[in-house]
Amino acid sequence: MYRIITIERQYASGGNEIGRKLAEALGYELYDRNLLIEAAKTLKIPSMYIEGLEEKQAGGFLFNLSKTPLGGSSSDKDLPLSEQLFLAEKRIIEEAGQKGGCVIVGRAAGYILKDYEDCLNVFIHCDQKKRIERAIKREGIQESEAADSLKKNDKRRSGFYHSVTKWEWGHPAFFELCLDSGKLGIDLCVKLLKEAAS
Amino acid sequence: MYRIITIERQYASGGNEIGRKLAEALGYELYDRNLLIEAAKTLKIPSMYIEGLEEKQAGGFLFNLSKTPLGGSSSDKDLPLSEQLFLAEKRIIEEAGQKGGCVIVGRAAGYILKDYEDCLNVFIHCDQKKRIERAIKREGIQESEAADSLKKNDKRRSGFYHSVTKWEWGHPAFFELCLDSGKLGIDLCVKLLKEAAS
Repeated sequence: MYRIITIERQYASGGNEIGRKLAEALGYELYDRNLLIEAAKTLKIPSMYIEGLEEKQAGGFLFNLSKTPLGGSSSDKDLPLSEQLFLAEKRIIEEAGQKGGCVIVGRAAGYILKDYEDCLNVFIHCDQKKRIERAIKREGIQESEAADSLKKNDKRRSGFYHSVTKWEWGHPAFFELCLDSGKLGIDLCVKLLKEAAS
Repeated sequence: MYRIITIERQYASGGNEIGRKLAEALGYELYDRNLLIEAAKTLKIPSMYIEGLEEKQAGGFLFNLSKTPLGGSSSDKDLPLSEQLFLAEKRIIEEAGQKGGCVIVGRAAGYILKDYEDCLNVFIHCDQKKRIERAIKREGIQESEAADSLKKNDKRRSGFYHSVTKWEWGHPAFFELCLDSGKLGIDLCVKLLKEAAS
């Protein structure tokens, strides 16, 4: 029985939808984009400015992340906004971990909560063709732009993940389950993860 | 519904046991070490000589593997024994794929059967500590030898896999499911795979 599920996901792989449906199926609280919005609120950043700050690769300060006190420190304000934002997200993730009953999408949450035995870490990937279809539908972009969008967003996410963890994004060694949402389908992924978590 | 399941596995990860239990749970035929023995029989190699030939990295001849005719060719006999053996295994795997209702462990079977839509490819991995415990128990070796045994056998398997496929052994892109048998446990892996295959 896992009280905490973290999900890292390739861009447009359906990982967000899987997270949402899994949280619903388990009766767990979902932390996805709302986590960013909540963190921005604590820093009094208007939501119109948070685009571009999401899972942005931060500098070396994140190397000693585990030593950052839960409550933050007065020196947070001297850090770049993207780093302040991540520290605020980190505090929300740590509180979620303590409380349990949560599905957390992205933000290297599996690393932040790596000391919890009852934390199940999942990576969702998908073939390029299905991801392009999803990106076109979701973002209303042209097919010609979609492949670039996938590449750019995966690079941002993997860079962010690596800057926080020093681990390789999507490497099985850091995830209990890696699932191909393209071949398996969203609903089967949710079913398997519910089964694994229960 | 998947008619074919292939399992690649880290050494002493429990992948063989998972394959056996999954085949039993699905009522599928199991192809594991028996595949090697059957292949050796077709070449009239006494079983006492097949140790050391198992999933041995073969040379460049495997690059154009997909062009090898199902029935083999008269020139097979000019190849090194390990390569003749792999071609014999490949024929058995192709026949199993055509027939369906099979779980095939190792031998890069997922690559050999890559054109089958109803083939589910699985990678089983496990933390070092549990693998060492399993290797000690299974092989009756000392703890001091076990870490070396893991390393040597993983290298052999990943080298074999790469020589056949040019793919990275254990990379999620080539597997629909990568499961951590250490954290999830053997029985949950079997349950999840049965669910995924059905």
